[in-house]
Amino acid sequence: MDTRYQVSGMTCQHCVAHVREEVSAIPGVSGVDLTLDDGLMVVHSDAPIELAAISAAVEEAGEYGVATLPLP
Amino acid sequence: MDTRYQVSGMTCQHCVAHVREEVSAIPGVSGVDLTLDDGLMVVHSDAPIELAAISAAVEEAGEYGVATLPLP
Repeated sequence: MDTRYQVSGMTCQHCVAHVREEVSAIPGVSGVDLTLDDGLMVVHSDAPIELAAISAAVEEAGEYGVATLPLP
Repeated sequence: MDTRYQVSGMTCQHCVAHVREEVSAIPGVSGVDLTLDDGLMVVHSDAPIELAAISAAVEEAGEYGVATLPLP
C-alpha cells in the first residue's frame, strides 16, 4: 500500500536524503518517494505504518515537520 | 481540510469517545469524525496537523494505534 505525507522544512537535497534514509529504515517500509519542491512523501509498505514511527523518523532526520496530506 | 486516519484497538463507544476527545483538543482541530466499526477517523482543520500531535493524542486516549489511510 502507499500512504502520502507532507514533509515541511526541507531546503536542499541533503534534507531529502536524510528524511528518506530515516523513513526507509522503519520496519515494514519497502520504499520512500520524496520530492524537495513540494515536500510530497509517498511511503510504500505491506502493512499500515503507525504515525508514531513516521513522526519519530522524520524528527530523527532533523528539523522537519510531517503531516498527513488532506483529501483532494 | 480533511485528513483521514486508521485507528486500531477500539472495542466500544467509550474508546471512540476517548479518542475523539483527545484529538479534538489538538490546537487547530475543528472537528473529528470517528466510527467504531471501521476505525476510520476524519480530522477537520484549517491547517495541516503534525503527525506527532495526532499520534500523541491517540496515545493519550489509551492503548490505541493510528496510521495514515492508504490511497484508494
